[in-house]
Amino acid sequence: MTEQPDYPRIDEAILIDYTASIVAHLGASVADAHTTAEVLAASDVRGIESHGVARLEQYVKMIQAGMLDPTAQPVITRQSGATALVDARNGLGQVAGVFAMRLAIEKARVADVGVVSLSHSNHYGIAGYYAMMALEHDMIGISLTNSSPLVAPTGGRAPMLGTNPIAFAAPTGDDLPFVLDMATSTVAKGRIEVAARKGVPLAAGWSMDAEGRPTLDPAAAMAGALLPLGGASESGGYKGYGLAVLVDILTGVLSGSLYGPLIGRLWQADRPSVLGQFFLALRPEAFGPLEEFHERLRDLRRLLREGPLAADAAEILLAGEKEARATEINRRLGIPVHPSVVGRLEEMGAQARLGALRRRG
Amino acid sequence: MTEQPDYPRIDEAILIDYTASIVAHLGASVADAHTTAEVLAASDVRGIESHGVARLEQYVKMIQAGMLDPTAQPVITRQSGATALVDARNGLGQVAGVFAMRLAIEKARVADVGVVSLSHSNHYGIAGYYAMMALEHDMIGISLTNSSPLVAPTGGRAPMLGTNPIAFAAPTGDDLPFVLDMATSTVAKGRIEVAARKGVPLAAGWSMDAEGRPTLDPAAAMAGALLPLGGASESGGYKGYGLAVLVDILTGVLSGSLYGPLIGRLWQADRPSVLGQFFLALRPEAFGPLEEFHERLRDLRRLLREGPLAADAAEILLAGEKEARATEINRRLGIPVHPSVVGRLEEMGAQARLGALRRRG
Repeated sequence: MTEQPDYPRIDEAILIDYTASIVAHLGASVADAHTTAEVLAASDVRGIESHGVARLEQYVKMIQAGMLDPTAQPVITRQSGATALVDARNGLGQVAGVFAMRLAIEKARVADVGVVSLSHSNHYGIAGYYAMMALEHDMIGISLTNSSPLVAPTGGRAPMLGTNPIAFAAPTGDDLPFVLDMATSTVAKGRIEVAARKGVPLAAGWSMDAEGRPTLDPAAAMAGALLPLGGASESGGYKGYGLAVLVDILTGVLSGSLYGPLIGRLWQADRPSVLGQFFLALRPEAFGPLEEFHERLRDLRRLLREGPLAADAAEILLAGEKEARATEINRRLGIPVHPSVVGRLEEMGAQARLGALRRRG
Repeated sequence: MTEQPDYPRIDEAILIDYTASIVAHLGASVADAHTTAEVLAASDVRGIESHGVARLEQYVKMIQAGMLDPTAQPVITRQSGATALVDARNGLGQVAGVFAMRLAIEKARVADVGVVSLSHSNHYGIAGYYAMMALEHDMIGISLTNSSPLVAPTGGRAPMLGTNPIAFAAPTGDDLPFVLDMATSTVAKGRIEVAARKGVPLAAGWSMDAEGRPTLDPAAAMAGALLPLGGASESGGYKGYGLAVLVDILTGVLSGSLYGPLIGRLWQADRPSVLGQFFLALRPEAFGPLEEFHERLRDLRRLLREGPLAADAAEILLAGEKEARATEINRRLGIPVHPSVVGRLEEMGAQARLGALRRRG
C-alpha cells in the first residue's frame, strides 16, 4: 500500500494521459496507449505501486530494443463457442489482455462461461484488472499470468518460477466486490529490495539464501530466491509451489508460450518475453438468480466481518476491501507516486516532448 | 503419508468391497455404495488417510440419524451447453460428485469447457479424485468443496471457514500427471490432533489459540483455530484466507448451499451438511495440439526436477508425485489402514453381517 506522505499526488486522469502520451510516442495507437496507461495507473490507484506506472520504464526499454512491438494487434488463432486462443503477437500486454478478457466475457454472455488463453504476450500489469472487468457484467472473472523466475520450487534453491499471480473477482451487487489478486509467492521481490535498502531483517517465510536455506537477511535473500506462499515445506510452502505451477500450466504451457525457468529475468530487455496469460468469465446467473448470488456473497462478507477479532486485530477485511479504500482516497486526493518514479516518467516524457507532470495541490 | 509399519495392509479390492457392503447395507444401491467406497479408498491408496475409509463412520452416523439420504439420486436442475447446476438432494457426496464431474467432462467434450455447480451435497472425500477423473479424457480437471469451519479469517480468532481444498489435475501423456490437491489452510486439523496426542509442539504458521495469537502449543491450538495457508498475515496468511473464500464463493455461494460459518461442525450429525462443490473440465486440445501440451508440461516437470537442490533436500517433486509413489506401493503391498480404523470398519461390518476384514500376508 502506498501511504507515504512525501509522495507527490497526481490526478488519475493526468497520470493516465501523461503515461499514454509516452506510449503513443513509441508507436502505439492512441487507443492502445490509453489502454496500457489505464491498466498501469489502475494498479497505482489501488495502492499497488509495484505493478503501476513504475513499470513503464521497462516497457520503453523493451520497445526501444525492438523486443516488444507496440503496434502489434492481438489475433484470434482458434476459437469455439466458449473458448479461444489469442496470439498477442508480442504486443503490449495490456492491449492483448483487455482484448482477451473482453472476448472471454463475450463468450460467457452466450455460453455462460468463456475461457481465453493468450500466447506470446508481455507483462500485463495487475492481474486483478482483468478479473475485475467481469464485475460490470455481473460475472465472476479470473486472470492468471506467468512471469520471470524469482521463486524456488520446494526442495530447490534457484529461482525457477514466477510469482505467478492468481486474480479472482466476484460481484456482490454493491460497490465492494470480492477481489483477490495475489502472487503465489509469500511476498513480491520488491519487499526484499525495500528491506535490503533499509537494512531491516525479513519476516520468516519470505526468502531463502543462495544455498536454499531460509534467511531473514535481506542481502542473502537478494542472492537467493523467494519462497512460495507458505514458506518452508513444513509450513505449507509446497502448496504455494503447487499453485505457482498450476498458474504456469494454465498460462505458459496451455498457450504455447514460455514457462518456468525458460522465461527471461525480470527487467531483461534483450529478448521478447513470450508470456502466457489466462482469462475466464463465468455467469453466476447460469446457476440461479443473480440477486440471490449477490445476497449470499454479501451475507458471507457480513458473517466474516462480524466474527470475533484476534487479540491484535482491528477488523476482518475481505480481499479487495483495502484496495477499494485506497481507490476511493486516491481518486479523491490524487494518486501517490514515488518521487523517483515521477522523475523517470518526466525523463521519458521529455523524450516525447511533454512538459512536467502536474502534481496536485 | 501413511508409512507406519504397524498398520495392517489390506488389498484395495477387498477394502472397497467391504466398505461398499457397509454402505449398501445402509440403503444405498450396490452401484452407489461401490462409488462411495471407491472414492474413499482412493484417498487411502494415495496415502491420505484423513479423507479415506476413516470417514465412513461419520457417513454411517449421518445416515442413521436420517441426515443423509443414501438412496438420493443427483438431478440436473439447470443446464446449458457448457454449464449445469446439479442438486445432490442430500445424497452421498461421492455419488453426486462423480455424477457432476462426469457431466462437466461430457460438456467439455462438446463445448471444450464444462462447469458444474453441485448443491446440497455432503462430504465427498478427496477433491483430487474428481479433478483426476478428467485425466483419462486428456482434460484438465478442477474440483473444489467447502467444508466445516476450522480456519480463522485473517484478523479473526474463531473458525469461520473450512479447509476448503483446491484440486487441479493436468495430463502429461505419461503416468505421472500433475495433481495438486491442497487444503487452503496450512495444515489439516488432523495434524494438530496428532501433535496433541503425542504432546509435541506445532510448527509455526499452523494454528492460533482461542485469543487469536499464533501458538505452537497443540492443546491451545485445539481450543483455537487453524491458520490459513501462509500463517500470520505478515507471512501471507491473508492469501490463504482469500483462497478459502474464493473456494466458498465457487461452491457454497454459487450453488445456493451453505457457506462459511453457517456450515455445521466437523463430525456433527444432527443436521444435513448442505455443502457446495465445483467441477470444471477443460480440453487443452481447444487451444492447440494435445501432444504439444503434453510435451511442454513434461518439459516443465523436467526443468524443475533438474534444478539445483536446496541444502537439505533430496529431490524436487511436482505435485502428485508423492501420491503416485504411494499408489504404486499400496496397490502392490496392500493399503495401510490404521488399526483403530480397521476396528471401526469391522464393528460397522458386523452390523452388516460381514466377517473380519482380510489383512494381507
